[in-house]
Amino acid sequence: MKLLKTLAPVAALIALPSLGLAQDEGPVPGVNASTDTIFILNSLLFLIGGFLVMWMAAGFAMLEAGLVRSKNVAMQCMKNVVLFSLAGIFYYLIGYNLMYPLGTWSMDGVLSGVWGPAVLEAVGVTADAADDYSYASTGSDFFFQLMFCATTASIVSGTLAERIKLWPFLIFTIVLTAIIYPLQASWKWGGGFLDEAGFLDFAGSTVVHSVGGWAALTGAIILGPRIGKFKDGRVNPIPGSNLTLATLGTFILWLGWFGFNGASQLAMGTVGDVADVSRIFANTNIAAAGGSVAALIITQIMYKKPDLTMVLNGALAGLVSITAEPLTPTLGAALIIGAIGGIIVVFAVPMIDKLKIDDVVGAIPVHLICGIWGTIAVVFTNADASFATQLYGIVVVGIFTLISSAVVWFILKLVMGIRVSEEEEIAGLDMGELGMEAYPEFSKG
Amino acid sequence: MKLLKTLAPVAALIALPSLGLAQDEGPVPGVNASTDTIFILNSLLFLIGGFLVMWMAAGFAMLEAGLVRSKNVAMQCMKNVVLFSLAGIFYYLIGYNLMYPLGTWSMDGVLSGVWGPAVLEAVGVTADAADDYSYASTGSDFFFQLMFCATTASIVSGTLAERIKLWPFLIFTIVLTAIIYPLQASWKWGGGFLDEAGFLDFAGSTVVHSVGGWAALTGAIILGPRIGKFKDGRVNPIPGSNLTLATLGTFILWLGWFGFNGASQLAMGTVGDVADVSRIFANTNIAAAGGSVAALIITQIMYKKPDLTMVLNGALAGLVSITAEPLTPTLGAALIIGAIGGIIVVFAVPMIDKLKIDDVVGAIPVHLICGIWGTIAVVFTNADASFATQLYGIVVVGIFTLISSAVVWFILKLVMGIRVSEEEEIAGLDMGELGMEAYPEFSKG
Amino acid sequence: MKLLKTLAPVAALIALPSLGLAQDEGPVPGVNASTDTIFILNSLLFLIGGFLVMWMAAGFAMLEAGLVRSKNVAMQCMKNVVLFSLAGIFYYLIGYNLMYPLGTWSMDGVLSGVWGPAVLEAVGVTADAADDYSYASTGSDFFFQLMFCATTASIVSGTLAERIKLWPFLIFTIVLTAIIYPLQASWKWGGGFLDEAGFLDFAGSTVVHSVGGWAALTGAIILGPRIGKFKDGRVNPIPGSNLTLATLGTFILWLGWFGFNGASQLAMGTVGDVADVSRIFANTNIAAAGGSVAALIITQIMYKKPDLTMVLNGALAGLVSITAEPLTPTLGAALIIGAIGGIIVVFAVPMIDKLKIDDVVGAIPVHLICGIWGTIAVVFTNADASFATQLYGIVVVGIFTLISSAVVWFILKLVMGIRVSEEEEIAGLDMGELGMEAYPEFSKG
Repeated sequence: MKLLKTLAPVAALIALPSLGLAQDEGPVPGVNASTDTIFILNSLLFLIGGFLVMWMAAGFAMLEAGLVRSKNVAMQCMKNVVLFSLAGIFYYLIGYNLMYPLGTWSMDGVLSGVWGPAVLEAVGVTADAADDYSYASTGSDFFFQLMFCATTASIVSGTLAERIKLWPFLIFTIVLTAIIYPLQASWKWGGGFLDEAGFLDFAGSTVVHSVGGWAALTGAIILGPRIGKFKDGRVNPIPGSNLTLATLGTFILWLGWFGFNGASQLAMGTVGDVADVSRIFANTNIAAAGGSVAALIITQIMYKKPDLTMVLNGALAGLVSITAEPLTPTLGAALIIGAIGGIIVVFAVPMIDKLKIDDVVGAIPVHLICGIWGTIAVVFTNADASFATQLYGIVVVGIFTLISSAVVWFILKLVMGIRVSEEEEIAGLDMGELGMEAYPEFSKG
Repeated sequence: MKLLKTLAPVAALIALPSLGLAQDEGPVPGVNASTDTIFILNSLLFLIGGFLVMWMAAGFAMLEAGLVRSKNVAMQCMKNVVLFSLAGIFYYLIGYNLMYPLGTWSMDGVLSGVWGPAVLEAVGVTADAADDYSYASTGSDFFFQLMFCATTASIVSGTLAERIKLWPFLIFTIVLTAIIYPLQASWKWGGGFLDEAGFLDFAGSTVVHSVGGWAALTGAIILGPRIGKFKDGRVNPIPGSNLTLATLGTFILWLGWFGFNGASQLAMGTVGDVADVSRIFANTNIAAAGGSVAALIITQIMYKKPDLTMVLNGALAGLVSITAEPLTPTLGAALIIGAIGGIIVVFAVPMIDKLKIDDVVGAIPVHLICGIWGTIAVVFTNADASFATQLYGIVVVGIFTLISSAVVWFILKLVMGIRVSEEEEIAGLDMGELGMEAYPEFSKG
Repeated sequence: MKLLKTLAPVAALIALPSLGLAQDEGPVPGVNASTDTIFILNSLLFLIGGFLVMWMAAGFAMLEAGLVRSKNVAMQCMKNVVLFSLAGIFYYLIGYNLMYPLGTWSMDGVLSGVWGPAVLEAVGVTADAADDYSYASTGSDFFFQLMFCATTASIVSGTLAERIKLWPFLIFTIVLTAIIYPLQASWKWGGGFLDEAGFLDFAGSTVVHSVGGWAALTGAIILGPRIGKFKDGRVNPIPGSNLTLATLGTFILWLGWFGFNGASQLAMGTVGDVADVSRIFANTNIAAAGGSVAALIITQIMYKKPDLTMVLNGALAGLVSITAEPLTPTLGAALIIGAIGGIIVVFAVPMIDKLKIDDVVGAIPVHLICGIWGTIAVVFTNADASFATQLYGIVVVGIFTLISSAVVWFILKLVMGIRVSEEEEIAGLDMGELGMEAYPEFSKG
């Protein structure tokens, strides 16, 4: 997202209506779209992008349901549905207006106040009364921004699967989506100090993915590993119960990412904007392709047998890696950035294991480590980026998320406990916490 | 859908081209989109909305396949694919022109006649020759409207699962999509007497969801419960075979609902229309969120363990509840309307059980009862709605659907029987009717 | 796709700005969309169509994962993810510029040269600098065209499942997506000799589906059938492991096909174009419906029990059949064309079996035979089509693909072998080649 950048040309058009555009010639070549049309197209981009990113919630659900053992599948589905719902409620109640506290988004002060819930434009709003007629509808922006907040929460659930209690997890989700995510997002996307410092993060390698990753990492450390994961100094692989679901989830996320990155252009009412959205679609796809193929090759070389889970995570790693800057790279550069992401994942997964951090689905390598990589990679293709500033942004967001997450996790641990009992963990969270099974009829091998 | 309402401003634009719009100033602020652009954007809204609603057919298929026992899964898939196909054929052959008998949709009489099949505009139609150049392409409208008809049919299959014969079910689907749905839909959306009476149903809480629900209820009563569901005065829960599929189905439906409600704005060629579509997206999402969280909290309180199936149905309940009026509520009101839907479902499911009506997937609470609730809830946020008129619409549509469905079910029962044999039901419909299994390799526990 | 055709009206508009369009009247009825708006809408069509066709990759993955035995499921997922990735890389590196060698697409020579990788327009391109301002952004075209190339590769993997080695399959995919597909596609869609001869193939019944089918057929013959498929002169059915996945895959493909056929209109910036896209959506849907219902009826009659797999393939057959000409048929004609496709599949599957060709998922009947049928069917509804020319195109593309595929398959067989060992095939490719299982916890019946 690059709010300030994309608003510039629109503003210019508005401010200088006598710019020499063929004003009195009607629909001939060279004529810009009308202001109404620009407003409509920008809003439409948010709506399409928004429903694609919403679909990523299903992708995370399927990916995680496929990568946990069958005794914890119903719980993983439950967490994913409810976290998405809670994000929808608490981003409305608190997050949205916390994220844009200065009214950067909407210049004429329609915001209901920093801590108030989000308020949309009136029904059938006229151009004059629209919050930002020169840009897009408030509802479409709210819908789109909400989905990014929800994505951040989705990242956390996978890492902590198979051992965290439902309710503390949900309470953490509330704090994350109401406060932690919006607050740090405002520093960049709300026009805050990171944005002013020149920190660049187009669609959220840092703002979304690393934040989800840091929150997951903190939780994983405080929660501890699953029983049996690390035993006698060895790492015991615990295979997921359903790799078709994991594959489906990856494809869903891949699809949704076109909305995630593409609509983060934030505008498509001009030739330049729609061509940029197109570049982003193409770059996003090739980065994912690079990540999956890189993971395939590396696992083939390292382990003699290619690893499907790594290939899936490689694709996701490519996607996260290109997210901080999906626009400026050429297709070739995007391919390389994604491929490096895929390679990182293959090496990071065993590294995380070595640290005895139990990340059930590999979300920390994918979202945190590749989120950092992607944020740094901006400097290779975007001349406006500085390595130091990118690092600064990564560190600031990281420290904030680590500390705030840790505080919340510790309070939850103290107040209500965050981990299920040993018996329940062994029996599975589905029977223990929900009293139901995801696959009641299939006998376990 | 609010055909007459949304057509009004467009008509005004057409009728009064000298309205004071900055006609000779070219692309400056305040200029409306051109008529071509409006036509294109309206049509595009129908196409995007249509493919999203089409996707709901997959959602119903997955939801139902996940909630039946594995011995009936292939049959449930079969029914869902074929019902969607039959809706596509019979809405074309009969339904579409039955639904718009007065030619309300297309003023210049392009309809091929009340009982004739649908006819689209010519290839490469010019503005002059378009059926309704001031609005949208006939093909996009047909495509969009068809998907609503198909949704109505999808609702029925879940309730009657695990015991109804394939062919009678399919014949019922034909009557439903060719006649029952289009006829009653014409009363509201075809500009008929319910519309004239002031009955409000934006996207079909009554016209789509309650109709599917009434047809399902009638079928369930006439068909009787599954063997073993109600025994010795007790209700025996029969768990679904695959809750990840049910979760996937719910996410698909949630996604598709943005098309269902959003594109029911029926226009996005003006600032007001696209802002309204945006409001609807945001409201639809928060209503689903409210429904799922409410179901979570209530089942936690009532049963001590939250119930995944209820949470999924809670989300769907929220969606159905907001469907009659997704535009006028504020986000907060939409949240509450959806949450009440979620609460209703938790209480309605055991109530339906108590009546010894066997609704396999909970479609009656979700689509019928929340459809009624959603239709009534219009009065809280839309000043044009009257409680009496809403009730009138609910009752009229209900009585018509109950009677017409009952007649069809009874004739089918008499002529060919609607229920499989006891042996077949116990062995499962997959082997009995199809001679195949959905999961032939997995041993049953 | 009908590049030359759709460019014509745009070109006219550009060339003759004094055509009598209401040039000095501003946004009144009858005014065309501005050039910017047309560029944006055309690009948007490619982006929406592109992400829908991308989603088809997931559809193929699920369809195939559902139709193979569980011991080969992880491998089938692996192949589908990686083939889509490789298509993305090699279509970029070689295919795209091989497909449009004459620069037909972009008149002003922006192509980087026949054998060079694809190059997109600059970031924030201005109207003046756009590769083809009168049409659409290069990035959107690249993205859309890539997805067709990937679809061709997806078709091959299903037929050869359960016995082909991973790496030779992937190398074949590279040759297919880098050279075989783009070269023959250039003959029609690149403005080559088939296009000049008047061969018509709107969205690729021949160019995409038959090419995938021919490559699959060649591979199946050279690879030989699975162990146990043909024994003692009998055909042994080998049921798929998960029919809900197959159903899901079919629904995904059905949805994606709206992008496949609809966006092959290649433009939606005029009233005629968007009405055509609408026609195509409606025709595509009813052809699929016709195919599935026809397969249902025929299997009911022939085998007394309707066959779910046939119904799913019937829907796909209907889709392939309408792909060569989804625009000109009336809804009724589209229904019949699709239904004939569905009937063809029911008879072709046992015919292929009789030839002792082992096609695991039925891709040859669906994509090759119905691809041929669809290409021939163009003559019934499009007056510009000649039977002889259609046949000429089918044969030319067929011979080229057969020979080039056979050469590649034979080289791969010679150099590295293409088939897994007998032990590995019996044990399953998942354990043998990947060392993992798709469903490790479920015991096999």
